[in-house]
Amino acid sequence: MTATTIGLLLFPNLTQLDLTGPLQVFSRLPDAKVYLVAKTMAAVTSDTALMLPPTIDFAGCPQLDVICVPGGTGTDDLVNDDDTLAFLRRQAEHSRYLTSVCTGALVLGAAGLLRGYRATTHWSALEDLKAFGTIPERSRVCIDRNRISGGGVTAGIDFALTLAELLADRATAQAIQLMLEYNPAPPFNAGSPDTAPQEVVAMLKQRMQGARQRRIDAIRRAAERLSVGSAPAD
Amino acid sequence: MTATTIGLLLFPNLTQLDLTGPLQVFSRLPDAKVYLVAKTMAAVTSDTALMLPPTIDFAGCPQLDVICVPGGTGTDDLVNDDDTLAFLRRQAEHSRYLTSVCTGALVLGAAGLLRGYRATTHWSALEDLKAFGTIPERSRVCIDRNRISGGGVTAGIDFALTLAELLADRATAQAIQLMLEYNPAPPFNAGSPDTAPQEVVAMLKQRMQGARQRRIDAIRRAAERLSVGSAPAD
Repeated sequence: MTATTIGLLLFPNLTQLDLTGPLQVFSRLPDAKVYLVAKTMAAVTSDTALMLPPTIDFAGCPQLDVICVPGGTGTDDLVNDDDTLAFLRRQAEHSRYLTSVCTGALVLGAAGLLRGYRATTHWSALEDLKAFGTIPERSRVCIDRNRISGGGVTAGIDFALTLAELLADRATAQAIQLMLEYNPAPPFNAGSPDTAPQEVVAMLKQRMQGARQRRIDAIRRAAERLSVGSAPAD
Repeated sequence: MTATTIGLLLFPNLTQLDLTGPLQVFSRLPDAKVYLVAKTMAAVTSDTALMLPPTIDFAGCPQLDVICVPGGTGTDDLVNDDDTLAFLRRQAEHSRYLTSVCTGALVLGAAGLLRGYRATTHWSALEDLKAFGTIPERSRVCIDRNRISGGGVTAGIDFALTLAELLADRATAQAIQLMLEYNPAPPFNAGSPDTAPQEVVAMLKQRMQGARQRRIDAIRRAAERLSVGSAPAD
Protein backbone atom coordinates (compact mmCIF):
# COMPACT_ATOMS: atom_id res chain seq x y z
CA MET A 1 0.00 0.00 0.00
CA THR A 2 1.38 3.42 -0.98
CA ALA A 3 1.25 6.21 1.56
CA THR A 4 -1.17 9.09 1.00
CA THR A 5 0.90 12.20 0.30
CA ILE A 6 -0.38 15.39 1.91
CA GLY A 7 1.24 18.75 1.24
CA LEU A 8 0.53 21.85 3.29
CA LEU A 9 1.64 25.09 1.66
CA LEU A 10 3.98 27.40 3.59
CA PHE A 11 4.32 31.07 2.65
CA PRO A 12 5.30 34.29 4.43
CA ASN A 13 2.80 35.70 6.93
CA LEU A 14 0.47 32.78 7.09
CA THR A 15 -1.76 32.40 10.14
CA GLN A 16 0.07 29.56 11.79
CA LEU A 17 -2.96 27.88 13.39
CA ASP A 18 -4.56 27.57 9.92
CA LEU A 19 -1.64 25.25 9.19
CA THR A 20 -0.85 23.64 12.53
CA GLY A 21 -4.41 22.52 13.31
CA PRO A 22 -4.76 20.37 10.16
CA LEU A 23 -1.09 19.36 10.40
CA GLN A 24 -1.76 17.85 13.82
CA VAL A 25 -4.69 15.81 12.52
CA PHE A 26 -3.02 14.67 9.28
CA SER A 27 0.14 13.63 11.13
CA ARG A 28 -1.82 11.07 13.12
CA LEU A 29 -3.21 9.38 10.01
CA PRO A 30 -1.72 5.95 9.42
CA ASP A 31 0.02 5.61 6.05
CA ALA A 32 0.22 9.33 5.38
CA LYS A 33 3.34 11.23 4.39
CA VAL A 34 3.04 14.91 5.25
CA TYR A 35 5.08 17.62 3.50
CA LEU A 36 5.45 21.29 4.35
CA VAL A 37 5.93 22.76 0.89
CA ALA A 38 7.33 26.20 0.10
CA LYS A 39 8.85 28.04 -2.83
CA THR A 40 12.32 27.72 -1.29
CA MET A 41 13.73 25.89 1.74
CA ALA A 42 14.07 29.10 3.77
CA ALA A 43 11.93 29.21 6.93
CA VAL A 44 8.91 31.47 6.43
CA THR A 45 7.48 33.97 8.88
CA SER A 46 4.09 33.35 10.44
CA ASP A 47 1.78 35.88 12.10
CA THR A 48 3.34 34.86 15.43
CA ALA A 49 6.87 34.52 16.82
CA LEU A 50 7.06 31.03 15.30
CA MET A 51 9.14 30.66 12.13
CA LEU A 52 8.09 27.76 9.91
CA PRO A 53 10.80 25.67 8.20
CA PRO A 54 9.60 23.88 5.04
CA THR A 55 10.44 20.22 4.50
CA ILE A 56 10.49 20.43 0.69
CA ASP A 57 10.46 23.07 -2.03
CA PHE A 58 8.26 23.34 -5.13
CA ALA A 59 10.95 21.87 -7.36
CA GLY A 60 11.44 18.79 -5.19
CA CYS A 61 7.83 18.16 -4.27
CA PRO A 62 6.33 14.90 -5.55
CA GLN A 63 2.78 14.65 -6.87
CA LEU A 64 0.51 15.15 -3.84
CA ASP A 65 -2.72 13.32 -3.14
CA VAL A 66 -3.91 16.19 -0.98
CA ILE A 67 -2.96 19.85 -1.27
CA CYS A 68 -3.91 22.16 1.60
CA VAL A 69 -3.53 25.94 1.44
CA PRO A 70 -3.80 27.74 4.78
CA GLY A 71 -4.69 31.43 5.07
CA GLY A 72 -3.47 34.64 6.63
CA THR A 73 -2.56 38.13 5.50
CA GLY A 74 0.15 36.57 3.33
CA THR A 75 -2.53 35.36 0.93
CA ASP A 76 -2.80 38.97 -0.31
CA ASP A 77 0.59 38.46 -1.94
CA LEU A 78 0.03 34.83 -2.85
CA VAL A 79 -3.04 35.46 -5.01
CA ASN A 80 -0.74 37.31 -7.42
CA ASP A 81 2.31 35.08 -7.12
CA ASP A 82 2.88 33.29 -10.44
CA ASP A 83 5.19 30.58 -9.06
CA THR A 84 2.71 29.58 -6.39
CA LEU A 85 -0.31 29.63 -8.68
CA ALA A 86 1.57 27.57 -11.29
CA PHE A 87 2.60 25.05 -8.62
CA LEU A 88 -1.00 24.64 -7.46
CA ARG A 89 -2.33 24.23 -11.01
CA ARG A 90 0.33 21.66 -11.84
CA GLN A 91 -0.39 19.67 -8.66
CA ALA A 92 -4.15 19.98 -9.13
CA GLU A 93 -4.07 17.99 -12.36
CA HIS A 94 -3.50 14.71 -10.55
CA SER A 95 -4.34 15.35 -6.91
CA ARG A 96 -7.25 13.64 -5.17
CA TYR A 97 -8.31 16.59 -2.98
CA LEU A 98 -7.71 20.32 -3.34
CA THR A 99 -8.26 21.90 0.04
CA SER A 100 -7.94 25.13 1.96
CA VAL A 101 -8.39 26.68 5.37
CA CYS A 102 -9.45 30.28 5.97
CA THR A 103 -8.30 32.68 3.22
CA GLY A 104 -6.32 29.88 1.60
CA ALA A 105 -9.47 29.45 -0.50
CA LEU A 106 -8.72 32.80 -2.17
CA VAL A 107 -5.41 31.37 -3.38
CA LEU A 108 -7.07 28.30 -4.89
CA GLY A 109 -9.56 30.74 -6.41
CA ALA A 110 -6.82 32.92 -7.87
CA ALA A 111 -5.31 29.82 -9.44
CA GLY A 112 -8.63 29.28 -11.20
CA LEU A 113 -9.20 26.08 -9.27
CA LEU A 114 -12.51 26.99 -7.59
CA ARG A 115 -14.38 28.33 -10.62
CA GLY A 116 -17.92 26.97 -10.46
CA TYR A 117 -17.34 25.36 -7.07
CA ARG A 118 -18.85 26.12 -3.70
CA ALA A 119 -16.32 27.00 -1.00
CA THR A 120 -16.02 28.59 2.42
CA THR A 121 -13.37 30.83 3.97
CA HIS A 122 -12.91 33.22 6.92
CA TRP A 123 -16.19 35.05 7.65
CA SER A 124 -14.57 38.36 6.69
CA ALA A 125 -13.62 37.10 3.21
CA LEU A 126 -16.68 35.16 2.06
CA GLU A 127 -17.81 37.68 -0.54
CA ASP A 128 -14.30 37.87 -2.00
CA LEU A 129 -14.66 34.34 -3.36
CA LYS A 130 -17.13 35.59 -5.98
CA ALA A 131 -14.31 37.39 -7.81
CA PHE A 132 -13.02 33.96 -8.83
CA GLY A 133 -16.37 32.53 -9.93
CA THR A 134 -16.81 30.65 -6.67
CA ILE A 135 -20.09 30.32 -4.79
CA PRO A 136 -19.49 31.35 -1.16
CA GLU A 137 -20.97 28.98 1.40
CA ARG A 138 -21.22 30.04 5.01
CA SER A 139 -20.26 26.80 6.73
CA ARG A 140 -17.56 25.36 8.94
CA VAL A 141 -16.49 22.82 6.31
CA CYS A 142 -17.62 22.86 2.68
CA ILE A 143 -17.30 19.84 0.39
CA ASP A 144 -17.96 20.23 -3.34
CA ARG A 145 -16.74 17.25 -5.35
CA ASN A 146 -12.98 17.03 -4.58
CA ARG A 147 -12.69 20.60 -3.29
CA ILE A 148 -12.86 20.82 0.50
CA SER A 149 -12.56 24.12 2.31
CA GLY A 150 -12.62 25.06 5.97
CA GLY A 151 -13.77 28.38 7.46
CA GLY A 152 -11.57 30.72 9.49
CA VAL A 153 -8.46 29.53 11.36
CA THR A 154 -9.78 27.05 13.95
CA ALA A 155 -12.18 25.57 11.38
CA GLY A 156 -9.06 23.86 10.07
CA ILE A 157 -9.42 21.25 12.82
CA ASP A 158 -13.01 20.41 11.87
CA PHE A 159 -12.00 20.39 8.20
CA ALA A 160 -9.06 18.05 8.82
CA LEU A 161 -11.10 15.56 10.84
CA THR A 162 -13.69 15.55 8.05
CA LEU A 163 -10.98 14.82 5.50
CA ALA A 164 -9.40 12.20 7.78
CA GLU A 165 -12.59 10.17 7.54
CA LEU A 166 -12.52 10.40 3.74
CA LEU A 167 -8.85 9.40 3.56
CA ALA A 168 -9.07 6.60 6.15
CA ASP A 169 -12.35 5.74 7.88
CA ARG A 170 -14.60 7.06 10.62
CA ALA A 171 -13.04 5.08 13.49
CA THR A 172 -9.58 6.35 12.54
CA ALA A 173 -10.80 9.95 12.47
CA GLN A 174 -12.57 9.48 15.80
CA ALA A 175 -9.43 8.00 17.38
CA ILE A 176 -7.49 11.09 16.26
CA GLN A 177 -10.18 13.33 17.75
CA LEU A 178 -9.99 11.40 21.03
CA MET A 179 -6.19 11.55 21.14
CA LEU A 180 -6.34 15.31 20.56
CA GLU A 181 -9.10 15.57 23.19
CA TYR A 182 -11.08 17.65 20.74
CA ASN A 183 -14.03 18.21 22.94
CA PRO A 184 -14.15 21.98 22.66
CA ALA A 185 -15.59 24.24 25.34
CA PRO A 186 -14.96 27.86 24.34
CA PRO A 187 -15.19 30.12 27.40
CA PHE A 188 -17.27 32.64 25.40
CA ASN A 189 -19.79 32.37 22.61
CA ALA A 190 -17.99 34.85 20.38
CA GLY A 191 -16.62 32.70 17.57
CA SER A 192 -18.94 33.99 14.87
CA PRO A 193 -20.23 37.47 13.95
CA ASP A 194 -23.71 36.06 14.63
CA THR A 195 -23.01 35.21 18.25
CA ALA A 196 -20.30 37.65 19.36
CA PRO A 197 -21.42 40.80 21.16
CA GLN A 198 -22.12 43.42 18.50
CA GLU A 199 -19.68 45.91 20.03
CA VAL A 200 -16.92 43.26 19.69
CA VAL A 201 -17.84 42.66 16.03
CA ALA A 202 -17.82 46.42 15.39
CA MET A 203 -14.46 46.91 17.16
CA LEU A 204 -12.84 44.09 15.19
CA LYS A 205 -14.22 45.26 11.84
CA GLN A 206 -12.94 48.75 12.59
CA ARG A 207 -9.50 47.35 13.42
CA MET A 208 -9.47 45.25 10.22
CA GLN A 209 -10.27 48.12 7.84
CA GLY A 210 -6.71 48.61 6.59
CA ALA A 211 -6.23 44.90 5.99
CA ARG A 212 -9.62 44.74 4.30
CA GLN A 213 -8.64 47.39 1.76
CA ARG A 214 -5.35 45.62 0.98
CA ARG A 215 -7.23 42.38 0.40
CA ILE A 216 -9.80 44.00 -1.88
CA ASP A 217 -7.00 45.47 -4.01
CA ALA A 218 -5.12 42.16 -4.17
CA ILE A 219 -8.25 40.21 -5.13
CA ARG A 220 -9.16 42.71 -7.84
CA ARG A 221 -5.73 42.36 -9.45
CA ALA A 222 -5.82 38.58 -9.16
CA ALA A 223 -9.30 38.36 -10.68
CA GLU A 224 -8.24 40.54 -13.63
CA ARG A 225 -5.22 38.35 -14.29
CA LEU A 226 -7.38 35.27 -14.14
CA SER A 227 -10.00 36.63 -16.54
CA VAL A 228 -7.40 37.42 -19.21
CA GLY A 229 -6.74 33.75 -19.49
CA SER A 230 -3.79 32.63 -17.40
CA ALA A 231 -5.94 29.97 -15.75
CA PRO A 232 -6.88 26.57 -17.12
CA ALA A 233 -10.36 26.24 -18.60
CA ASP A 234 -12.91 24.35 -16.50
CA MET B 1 2.73 50.43 30.17
CA THR B 2 5.11 47.46 30.11
CA ALA B 3 4.29 44.56 27.85
CA THR B 4 3.15 41.30 29.41
CA THR B 5 5.89 38.73 28.75
CA ILE B 6 4.65 35.27 27.86
CA GLY B 7 7.04 32.36 27.41
CA LEU B 8 6.04 29.05 25.83
CA LEU B 9 8.47 26.21 26.46
CA LEU B 10 9.91 24.34 23.48
CA PHE B 11 11.43 20.87 23.89
CA PRO B 12 12.00 17.83 21.68
CA ASN B 13 8.92 15.78 20.75
CA LEU B 14 6.30 18.14 21.98
CA THR B 15 2.80 17.88 20.53
CA GLN B 16 2.88 20.94 18.34
CA LEU B 17 -0.81 21.86 18.64
CA ASP B 18 -0.42 22.03 22.45
CA LEU B 19 1.89 24.94 21.70
CA THR B 20 0.51 26.48 18.53
CA GLY B 21 -3.09 26.80 19.78
CA PRO B 22 -2.20 29.00 22.76
CA LEU B 23 0.52 30.74 20.72
CA GLN B 24 -2.11 31.89 18.23
CA VAL B 25 -4.30 33.33 20.97
CA PHE B 26 -1.49 34.98 22.96
CA SER B 27 -0.02 36.54 19.81
CA ARG B 28 -3.20 38.53 19.26
CA LEU B 29 -3.12 40.07 22.73
CA PRO B 30 -2.29 43.76 22.67
CA ASP B 31 0.82 44.66 24.68
CA ALA B 32 2.11 41.11 24.94
CA LYS B 33 5.62 39.95 24.06
CA VAL B 34 5.67 36.24 23.27
CA TYR B 35 8.83 34.12 23.56
CA LEU B 36 9.47 30.57 22.43
CA VAL B 37 11.95 29.43 25.06
CA ALA B 38 14.24 26.41 24.83
CA LYS B 39 17.38 25.10 26.43
CA THR B 40 19.41 26.04 23.36
CA MET B 41 18.66 27.92 20.15
CA ALA B 42 18.57 24.75 18.05
CA ALA B 43 15.19 24.01 16.44
CA VAL B 44 13.38 21.21 18.28
CA THR B 45 11.45 18.34 16.77
CA SER B 46 7.70 18.15 17.21
CA ASP B 47 5.45 15.12 16.84
CA THR B 48 4.85 16.23 13.24
CA ALA B 49 7.00 17.21 10.26
CA LEU B 50 7.21 20.74 11.66
CA MET B 51 10.49 21.72 13.34
CA LEU B 52 10.16 24.47 15.94
CA PRO B 53 12.86 27.16 16.13
CA PRO B 54 13.11 28.86 19.55
CA THR B 55 13.33 32.65 19.80
CA ILE B 56 15.36 32.66 23.02
CA ASP B 57 17.28 30.23 25.22
CA PHE B 58 17.11 29.69 28.99
CA ALA B 59 20.20 31.81 29.60
CA GLY B 60 18.85 34.79 27.66
CA CYS B 61 15.24 34.61 28.78
CA PRO B 62 13.96 37.56 30.82
CA GLN B 63 11.63 37.15 33.78
CA LEU B 64 8.30 35.99 32.35
CA ASP B 65 4.87 37.08 33.52
CA VAL B 66 3.35 33.90 32.10
CA ILE B 67 5.06 30.54 31.64
CA CYS B 68 3.28 27.94 29.55
CA VAL B 69 4.45 24.32 29.27
CA PRO B 70 2.89 22.31 26.44
CA GLY B 71 2.76 18.51 26.44
CA GLY B 72 3.65 15.54 24.31
CA THR B 73 5.69 12.37 24.60
CA GLY B 74 8.75 14.59 25.14
CA THR B 75 7.50 15.36 28.65
CA ASP B 76 8.65 11.84 29.63
CA ASP B 77 12.21 13.15 29.32
CA LEU B 78 11.46 16.62 30.59
CA VAL B 79 10.15 15.51 34.00
CA ASN B 80 13.68 14.30 34.75
CA ASP B 81 15.60 17.10 33.07
CA ASP B 82 17.42 19.17 35.71
CA ASP B 83 18.08 22.21 33.52
CA THR B 84 14.43 22.53 32.55
CA LEU B 85 13.10 21.97 36.08
CA ALA B 86 15.56 24.54 37.46
CA PHE B 87 14.56 27.06 34.78
CA LEU B 88 10.87 26.65 35.66
CA ARG B 89 11.50 26.98 39.41
CA ARG B 90 13.59 30.09 38.89
CA GLN B 91 10.97 31.70 36.67
CA ALA B 92 8.14 30.66 38.99
CA GLU B 93 9.44 32.78 41.82
CA HIS B 94 8.31 36.01 40.18
CA SER B 95 5.87 34.99 37.44
CA ARG B 96 2.20 35.94 37.56
CA TYR B 97 0.82 32.73 36.05
CA LEU B 98 2.25 29.22 35.84
CA THR B 99 0.40 27.37 33.13
CA SER B 100 0.35 24.17 31.14
CA VAL B 101 -1.46 22.37 28.35
CA CYS B 102 -1.90 18.59 28.18
CA THR B 103 0.96 16.64 29.81
CA GLY B 104 2.87 19.89 30.34
CA ALA B 105 1.22 19.77 33.78
CA LEU B 106 3.41 16.77 34.62
CA VAL B 107 6.49 18.91 34.04
CA LEU B 108 5.25 21.65 36.36
CA GLY B 109 4.46 18.84 38.81
CA ALA B 110 7.95 17.36 38.52
CA ALA B 111 9.37 20.81 39.27
CA GLY B 112 7.39 20.75 42.52
CA LEU B 113 5.26 23.64 41.35
CA LEU B 114 1.84 21.96 41.57
CA ARG B 115 2.10 20.44 45.04
CA GLY B 116 -1.20 21.03 46.80
CA TYR B 117 -2.78 22.52 43.69
CA ARG B 118 -5.62 21.25 41.53
CA ALA B 119 -4.71 20.76 37.87
CA THR B 120 -5.88 19.08 34.70
CA THR B 121 -4.03 17.36 31.86
CA HIS B 122 -4.66 14.96 28.95
CA TRP B 123 -7.38 12.44 29.93
CA SER B 124 -4.86 9.59 29.72
CA ALA B 125 -2.54 11.22 32.30
CA LEU B 126 -4.91 12.55 34.96
CA GLU B 127 -3.99 10.00 37.62
CA ASP B 128 -0.27 10.63 37.05
CA LEU B 129 -0.60 14.08 38.60
CA LYS B 130 -1.05 12.50 42.04
CA ALA B 131 2.60 11.43 42.06
CA PHE B 132 3.49 15.11 42.47
CA GLY B 133 0.99 15.87 45.22
CA THR B 134 -1.45 17.43 42.76
CA ILE B 135 -5.23 16.98 42.86
CA PRO B 136 -6.38 15.88 39.37
CA GLU B 137 -9.40 17.73 38.09
CA ARG B 138 -11.24 16.44 35.07
CA SER B 139 -12.01 19.68 33.29
CA ARG B 140 -11.21 21.54 30.11
CA VAL B 141 -9.49 24.38 31.96
CA CYS B 142 -8.54 24.33 35.63
CA ILE B 143 -7.73 27.47 37.60
CA ASP B 144 -6.28 27.18 41.12
CA ARG B 145 -4.87 30.46 42.38
CA ASN B 146 -2.18 31.41 39.80
CA ARG B 147 -1.85 27.92 38.34
CA ILE B 148 -3.89 27.45 35.16
CA SER B 149 -3.89 24.19 33.27
CA GLY B 150 -5.63 23.01 30.12
CA GLY B 151 -6.65 19.46 29.24
CA GLY B 152 -5.38 17.51 26.24
CA VAL B 153 -3.99 19.21 23.10
CA THR B 154 -6.94 21.21 21.70
CA ALA B 155 -7.94 22.30 25.23
CA GLY B 156 -5.01 24.70 24.84
CA ILE B 157 -7.26 27.01 22.82
CA ASP B 158 -9.94 27.14 25.53
CA PHE B 159 -7.22 27.59 28.15
CA ALA B 160 -5.57 30.45 26.25
CA LEU B 161 -8.83 32.34 25.71
CA THR B 162 -9.55 31.97 29.43
CA LEU B 163 -6.14 33.39 30.26
CA ALA B 164 -6.53 36.15 27.65
CA GLU B 165 -9.50 37.49 29.62
CA LEU B 166 -7.43 37.50 32.82
CA LEU B 167 -4.49 39.25 31.14
CA ALA B 168 -6.59 41.78 29.22
CA ASP B 169 -10.38 41.84 29.46
CA ARG B 170 -13.40 39.92 28.19
CA ALA B 171 -13.98 42.02 25.06
CA THR B 172 -10.36 41.55 24.01
CA ALA B 173 -10.58 37.78 24.49
CA GLN B 174 -13.86 37.69 22.58
CA ALA B 175 -12.36 39.69 19.70
CA ILE B 176 -9.54 37.14 19.49
CA GLN B 177 -12.07 34.29 19.46
CA LEU B 178 -14.00 36.03 16.67
CA MET B 179 -10.86 36.67 14.63
CA LEU B 180 -9.91 33.00 14.97
CA GLU B 181 -13.50 32.02 14.11
CA TYR B 182 -13.45 29.71 17.11
CA ASN B 183 -16.94 28.44 16.73
CA PRO B 184 -16.09 24.75 16.80
CA ALA B 185 -18.21 22.08 15.11
CA PRO B 186 -16.42 18.73 15.44
CA PRO B 187 -17.72 16.31 12.81
CA PHE B 188 -17.89 13.53 15.44
CA ASN B 189 -18.63 13.43 19.15
CA ALA B 190 -15.47 11.50 19.98
CA GLY B 191 -13.33 14.06 21.81
CA SER B 192 -13.60 12.46 25.24
CA PRO B 193 -13.47 8.86 26.48
CA ASP B 194 -17.01 9.47 27.78
CA THR B 195 -18.46 10.24 24.37
CA ALA B 196 -16.27 8.34 21.89
CA PRO B 197 -17.48 4.93 20.70
CA GLN B 198 -16.16 2.39 23.20
CA GLU B 199 -14.37 0.39 20.47
CA VAL B 200 -12.47 3.55 19.50
CA VAL B 201 -11.48 4.16 23.15
CA ALA B 202 -10.35 0.54 23.47
CA MET B 203 -8.37 0.66 20.21
CA LEU B 204 -6.59 3.85 21.23
CA LYS B 205 -5.78 2.61 24.74
CA GLN B 206 -4.36 -0.56 23.23
CA ARG B 207 -2.20 1.48 20.84
CA MET B 208 -0.99 3.71 23.69
CA GLN B 209 0.16 0.88 25.96
CA GLY B 210 3.88 1.21 25.20
CA ALA B 211 3.80 4.98 25.65
CA ARG B 212 1.81 4.53 28.87
CA GLN B 213 4.47 2.29 30.39
CA ARG B 214 7.25 4.74 29.46
CA ARG B 215 5.32 7.55 31.11
CA ILE B 216 4.68 5.57 34.29
CA ASP B 217 8.42 4.83 34.58
CA ALA B 218 9.38 8.46 33.95
CA ILE B 219 6.86 9.78 36.49
CA ARG B 220 8.02 7.30 39.13
CA ARG B 221 11.62 8.44 38.77
CA ALA B 222 10.60 12.11 38.79
CA ALA B 223 8.45 11.70 41.90
CA GLU B 224 11.30 9.95 43.73
CA ARG B 225 13.70 12.75 42.88
CA LEU B 226 11.20 15.33 44.05
CA SER B 227 10.54 13.59 47.39
CA VAL B 228 14.24 13.51 48.27
CA GLY B 229 14.17 17.26 48.39
CA SER B 230 15.31 18.83 45.14
CA ALA B 231 12.14 20.88 44.97
CA PRO B 232 11.33 24.07 46.84
CA ALA B 233 9.12 23.74 49.91
CA ASP B 234 5.55 24.98 49.53
